[in-house]
Amino acid sequence: MNLVTIAIALGLLAVIYGIVTSRQVLGANAGSAKMQEIAGAIQEGARAYLNRQYTTIAFVGIAVAAIVWYFLGPISAIGFVLGAILSGVAGFIGMNISVRANVRTAAAAQTGLQQGLTLAFRAGAITGMLVAGLALLAIAVFFYILIGPMALAPNGREVIDALVALAFGASLISIFARLGGGIFTKAADVGADLVGKVEAGIPEDDPRNPAVIADNVGDNVGDCAGMAADLFETYVVTVGATMVLTALLLTTVGELLLPLMALPLLIGGACIVTSIIGTYFVRLGGGTNVMGAMYKGFLVTAVLSIPAIWFVTSYALGGDMNSVINPGTDMVPFNGMDLFWCSMVGLAITGLIIWITEYYTGTNYRPVRSIAKSSETGHGTNVIQGLAISLEATALPTLVIVAGIVIAYQIAGLMGIAYGATAMLALAGMVVALDAYGPVTDNAGGIAEMAGMDDSVREKTDALDAVGNTTKAVTKGYAIGSAGLAALVLFAAYTTDLREFFPDATVDFSLENPYVIVGLLLGALLPYLFGAMGMTAVGRAAGDVVKDVREQFAADPGIMAGTSRPDYARTVDLVTKAAIKEMIVPSLLPVLAPIVVYFAITLIAGQDNGFAALGALLLGVIVGGLFVAISMTAGGGAWDNAKKYIEDGNHGGKGSEAHKAAVTGDTVGDPYKDTAGPAVNPMIKITNIVALLLLAALAAA
Amino acid sequence: MNLVTIAIALGLLAVIYGIVTSRQVLGANAGSAKMQEIAGAIQEGARAYLNRQYTTIAFVGIAVAAIVWYFLGPISAIGFVLGAILSGVAGFIGMNISVRANVRTAAAAQTGLQQGLTLAFRAGAITGMLVAGLALLAIAVFFYILIGPMALAPNGREVIDALVALAFGASLISIFARLGGGIFTKAADVGADLVGKVEAGIPEDDPRNPAVIADNVGDNVGDCAGMAADLFETYVVTVGATMVLTALLLTTVGELLLPLMALPLLIGGACIVTSIIGTYFVRLGGGTNVMGAMYKGFLVTAVLSIPAIWFVTSYALGGDMNSVINPGTDMVPFNGMDLFWCSMVGLAITGLIIWITEYYTGTNYRPVRSIAKSSETGHGTNVIQGLAISLEATALPTLVIVAGIVIAYQIAGLMGIAYGATAMLALAGMVVALDAYGPVTDNAGGIAEMAGMDDSVREKTDALDAVGNTTKAVTKGYAIGSAGLAALVLFAAYTTDLREFFPDATVDFSLENPYVIVGLLLGALLPYLFGAMGMTAVGRAAGDVVKDVREQFAADPGIMAGTSRPDYARTVDLVTKAAIKEMIVPSLLPVLAPIVVYFAITLIAGQDNGFAALGALLLGVIVGGLFVAISMTAGGGAWDNAKKYIEDGNHGGKGSEAHKAAVTGDTVGDPYKDTAGPAVNPMIKITNIVALLLLAALAAA
Repeated sequence: MNLVTIAIALGLLAVIYGIVTSRQVLGANAGSAKMQEIAGAIQEGARAYLNRQYTTIAFVGIAVAAIVWYFLGPISAIGFVLGAILSGVAGFIGMNISVRANVRTAAAAQTGLQQGLTLAFRAGAITGMLVAGLALLAIAVFFYILIGPMALAPNGREVIDALVALAFGASLISIFARLGGGIFTKAADVGADLVGKVEAGIPEDDPRNPAVIADNVGDNVGDCAGMAADLFETYVVTVGATMVLTALLLTTVGELLLPLMALPLLIGGACIVTSIIGTYFVRLGGGTNVMGAMYKGFLVTAVLSIPAIWFVTSYALGGDMNSVINPGTDMVPFNGMDLFWCSMVGLAITGLIIWITEYYTGTNYRPVRSIAKSSETGHGTNVIQGLAISLEATALPTLVIVAGIVIAYQIAGLMGIAYGATAMLALAGMVVALDAYGPVTDNAGGIAEMAGMDDSVREKTDALDAVGNTTKAVTKGYAIGSAGLAALVLFAAYTTDLREFFPDATVDFSLENPYVIVGLLLGALLPYLFGAMGMTAVGRAAGDVVKDVREQFAADPGIMAGTSRPDYARTVDLVTKAAIKEMIVPSLLPVLAPIVVYFAITLIAGQDNGFAALGALLLGVIVGGLFVAISMTAGGGAWDNAKKYIEDGNHGGKGSEAHKAAVTGDTVGDPYKDTAGPAVNPMIKITNIVALLLLAALAAA
Repeated sequence: MNLVTIAIALGLLAVIYGIVTSRQVLGANAGSAKMQEIAGAIQEGARAYLNRQYTTIAFVGIAVAAIVWYFLGPISAIGFVLGAILSGVAGFIGMNISVRANVRTAAAAQTGLQQGLTLAFRAGAITGMLVAGLALLAIAVFFYILIGPMALAPNGREVIDALVALAFGASLISIFARLGGGIFTKAADVGADLVGKVEAGIPEDDPRNPAVIADNVGDNVGDCAGMAADLFETYVVTVGATMVLTALLLTTVGELLLPLMALPLLIGGACIVTSIIGTYFVRLGGGTNVMGAMYKGFLVTAVLSIPAIWFVTSYALGGDMNSVINPGTDMVPFNGMDLFWCSMVGLAITGLIIWITEYYTGTNYRPVRSIAKSSETGHGTNVIQGLAISLEATALPTLVIVAGIVIAYQIAGLMGIAYGATAMLALAGMVVALDAYGPVTDNAGGIAEMAGMDDSVREKTDALDAVGNTTKAVTKGYAIGSAGLAALVLFAAYTTDLREFFPDATVDFSLENPYVIVGLLLGALLPYLFGAMGMTAVGRAAGDVVKDVREQFAADPGIMAGTSRPDYARTVDLVTKAAIKEMIVPSLLPVLAPIVVYFAITLIAGQDNGFAALGALLLGVIVGGLFVAISMTAGGGAWDNAKKYIEDGNHGGKGSEAHKAAVTGDTVGDPYKDTAGPAVNPMIKITNIVALLLLAALAAA
C-alpha cells in the first residue's frame, strides 16, 4: 500500500509544480490594454466553446454512466465518471493556462527570444505536468480507495472492472474533445484562410477578418484542450491496462501482486520527477536553436529516467531484480531486470519516434524539402508529393514499433510489451510540455499581429512557432505508437477476460477462421470511415465560416476599411455549434461498432465466432489505424513546414507561385493532422475498452 | 479429362471471337492521312515502350525462372515462363488493338455516336475476351498436358507447384506492367498538363505540346496493356488457387477430384460464352446514354451466367447437385447446389461493386458533386473533400466483401469462398471489355483534337470518354475486391501446404501470438510503402517531362508558333526510360518482403514463429491493401469526374476558379487511381504466391 501512496505523492508533486509555475506565468507582464482586449476575446471564445462542448458531452456521459452502472454496478460507474471528469479537467486547465500565457508570451517576446521561449514553454510544462499528474492521481487514488478503505482484492473483478471503466471515461471524453476541438480549430483555420487570404487578400491574423478570433480560439480548444484530454486518456489506458494485465495474468505471484500492480504507477511517478527536472534544461544557451533547446530538456528527462526506473523497479520488488517473478507458469519467465529492460525499450521507442518525426516534418531534411520543391510545378504536384511522403512516413515508425514488440516480447512476454508501453507514457509530462507550447506561441503571434506590435516581435514568435509543427507531430506519433503497444495489452486483457468469463467457449482466434478475417477487415475499416467523417465535417464547417464572413463583409463595408469592428463572437459561436454538431456521430462509431459486430456475427455464426470476430476487430482497428494516423499526422506536419520553408525565402519565397501551391498543401494537411489523424488514437482505445466492458456485461447478464 | 477439353474449346472460342472482331475493327475506315500520321506516332511510341519494358522484365524473369527451376524443378519453371509470357501477350495484343482502334473510332464518330461506341467497344471486347480466353487457356492447356500426356496425379505436388508457378509468372509480369505502364501514363499526363495547360496556356491534346503523343501513348501502355496484364494475372491466380485448394483440401473425394478441379475452368469457359453474347447488347437504342448501353451488355452477361454456371456445375458433377461432396471430413459439408449458390454470391459481389463504384465516381451522385461544389472555395477544399470521399469509398465495398465472405463460408466453407472468387473472375471478359474501351475513346479524342477535326467529333468522343472514368474505376474495384476473396484462398493454401510440408511444426496463427501481430503490421505496411514509391516515381518522372518540354520550347520558338513540329519521340523516349527505371524497386518489394520477414523472424524467434509471421504478413497485406487500393482508385475517379462535371457547365464551368481547383484534384487523383492504387492488386497476389513458393523451396531444400 505504501507504494501506491508514494505514487500519489509524486502525482501531487506534478500538481504542485503546476500551481507554482502557473503563478509565475500569470505574474508575468500581460501586455498593453489592446493586447489584453484581444486575449480577452480569445479567452471568452475558448471558454464558451469548452462550456458548450462539456455540456453536450455530459449528456452522453450521463447516459453511458447509467448503462455502466446497470451492467457493472456502482463502483465501475464511479470509475467511469471519475475518468471522464478528470479528462475534462485536464483539458480545461490546459486551455485556461494557454489562453493566459499567449498574451504574456507576446509581451515577453518584446524583451527577447529566450524570454518568450521561457514563458511559452513554462505554460506548456504546466499542461504537461498536470496531464501526467492528474492521470497518475486518477488511477492511484482510485486504486488506493478500492483496495484500502473498501478492502477489495487488488485482482478482484470489481477492481479490474473499475479500472477499465475509469479508462473508458477518460477515452470517451477524449475522443469528443479531440474531434470536437479538431473540427473547431481546422474549420476556423481553413475558413479564415479561404475567405481572408484567398478572397479578401488580407494577411493571416488580420484583425479585419471576422474569423480571426475563432482561429486563435481553435488553437486553444483543439491543439491544447483536445490534445491534453487525448494524452490524459492515453496515459490512463496504458498504465491502467498494464495493471489490469498484471492482475489477470500473474495469478500465482502471491505477495508480489500488489507491488507489481503498483509498479506502473511508480514508474509514472518517477518520470514526473525527471520531467520536472528536464523542464529546467530547456534553454537557448546563447544560440537561437529553439528545437535544440527543447531536445536538451527531453534528453535530460530521458537519461535521468533510466536510473529512476531502475530504482523504483528494484524498490518495488524489495531489491530483488534477479528472481523469476512468475515461476512455473506457462508464460515467458521474467524478473525485475527484464521489466527494467523492457521499460528501456519503451524509452528507446519514444526517442526513435521523435527522431523519425523530426526527420519527416523538419525543414532540414529531404521529405519537407521535396514537398517544397514540388510546389514549384504547382498545386497538384505539391499535393502528390505530400501524399507520397505521408504514405512513406508510416514505414520507419512501424518498423520501430514492430522491433519494440519483438524485443520486449523476447525479454518478458506480454508483460514486457506492457512495460514498454508504460515507460513510453511515463514521459508524457515532458512530451505534452513540448506540444502544449505550440498553441501558446501560435496565439502569441496572432496577438502580436492583431495588436499591431513591432515586426521584430512577430519574427520572434514566428521563430518560436516554427518548431511547433514538429513538436505537435511528435506528440501524435508518440501517442499512436504507444497505442500500437497498448492495443496488444488490451487484446491480451480481452482474451484473458474471455477465458475467465466464458470458460466453456472455444473461441478460435486463428487467422484460419474466416470470422477473424472479417473482424480484421471491419476493424481496419473503422479508421477510414472515421477519417472520412472528420475530413467532411471540417470541410462543411469551414464552408459555414466562409459564408458568415462574406455576409459580415457585405453587411458592413467599414470592416474592410478598418473603421468598424467585425463581430468576432458571432463567428466563434457559429464554429462552436458546427463543431459540436459534427463531433457526435463519428465519436459514437467506435463505441457502437464492437457491439454491432459482436451481435451480428453471433447471430449468423454463433457466439464463439462472435467473440473471435470482436477480438479480430480490436486488432484490425490498430492495424488499420496505425497507418492512417501516422500518415495523416506526419504528412500534415510536412505540408505545413514545406510552406514555412518556402516562406523562409526558398523556391521564390512568400507570394510566389510555389508559395501558393504550398498554401494549398498546408490547407489539405490541416484536417489531416489536427482533426482526423490524432482522433484515431482515442478511437482505437475506445473500441478495445468497449469490447472489454461488453464481455463483462455479457457475463453479468 | 473431357471436361478440361471443353474448357480449352471455350477458351479457343474467345480467341476466335478476338480474331474475327479484330478483322472487323481493322477493316473500318482509318481516317485521313493526318489522322493516320498521328495514330502512327502513338503506335510507334507504344510499341517502343512495350518492347523496352518487356526486354527489361525478361532479364528479371529469366533470373526468377532460374531460381524457380533450381528449387522446384523444370515443370514449375516452365509454368512460370508460360504464365509470364502469356501475361505479356495479353497486354501486347490489347495494346495493339487499342492503338489501331483509336483512329478508327475518331473516324467513326464523324458518322455518329453509335458508330463510335460500336467501334470503341468492340476494340475493348477484343482485349477483354483475349484476356479471359488466354488466361483460361493458359491454365487449362497446362493442366491438360500435366495430367494427360505427362500422366501426373491431378493433386500431386508437381501439378500444384506448377499451377502456383504459372500464377507467379503471370503476377510478376503484371506488377511490372501495371506499375511501369502506370508511371508512364501518369508521368506523361501530369507532365503534359503542367507544362501545357498551366505554363504555356495551351489546351489539352494541343499538337504544339511535345508531350502530347507521350500522353496518348500512356493511355495505351498503362490503361490498356497494364490493365490487361493485371486482369490476366487476377484470373490465373484466382482460378488456379481454387484448383490448388481443391487438390489440397478435398483429399477424400475419389472419382470426383478431376471434375472438381476442372469445374472452375468450366465456369470460366461458360462465362466466356455469356460475355460474348453480352457484347452484342451494348447499344444505345436511340438514346445517348452510353453508360446505360454498357450496363445493358453487362446485365445480359450476368443474367445468362446464372443458368450457365448451374449447367456446368451440374454437368461436371454428373447431374448430381444434392449429394454431399466431402462426407466425413472436418470441413463444412457442401454439395453441387452449394457451389452454385456460392458462385451466385460472386456474381452478386461483382454487381454490387459496379453499382457502388458508379455511385462514388459517377457525376450524378453526391460524392462527385460534393467534390465539384467544394472546388468553389479553392484548391485546398477540393483536395480535402476528395480525400474524404476516397476514405469513405472504402466502406461499402468492404461491407460487401465481408458479407460475401460470411455468406459463402456459411454455405460451403473455404471452398465456397473460392467459388465466389472464381465466379467473380469468370466475368472478367465483360468487365475488361468495359475498361479497355476507355483508352480507345480517350485516344480518339486526342487524335480528333490534334488532327483539327470538326468540334462535333470531339464532342462525341468526349461523351464516349466520360463513362471511361467510371468503367476504369469499376475494373479496379472489381480486381481488388476479388483479391480480398482470393487472398483467403491463398492463405488457406499456405496453411494447408505448411501442414503437409512441415508436419512437425506447431505454428500458432492465433492473434494472441505477437509474431502474428508483427506479421499483420508489416503486411499492412507494404501497400503504404509501395504506394509512396509509386507516387514519388510519378512526381519525379513528370518533373523530367516538364524540363524536356521547356527545353524544346526554348530551343525552337517555332513550336509554339505552330510552324515547326515538336520532337514527340524524344519525350516518349524520356518517359519510357524514366518509367522503366522507376518500376523495378517497388515491384521487387512484394517479392522480397515475405522472404526477409520469414528469415528475420525465424532467426529471432524460431521457425514456427517465422511461419506464423509470414502467414500473418499475407493477411496483413490484404487488410492494408484493400483499403489503400479502393480509396485510391475510387477517389481518383471521383476527382476526375468532378472536373468533368464542372466542365459540363456547373459551378462556373471551364476556365472558372472552381475549374482550376478541380484540375488540381484531377492531377492528384491521377497517380492515385492509375499508378499506385491498381498496382496494389498484383502486389497482394505476389506476396501470397512467393510465400507458397518459399514453403515449397524450404521443404525441398
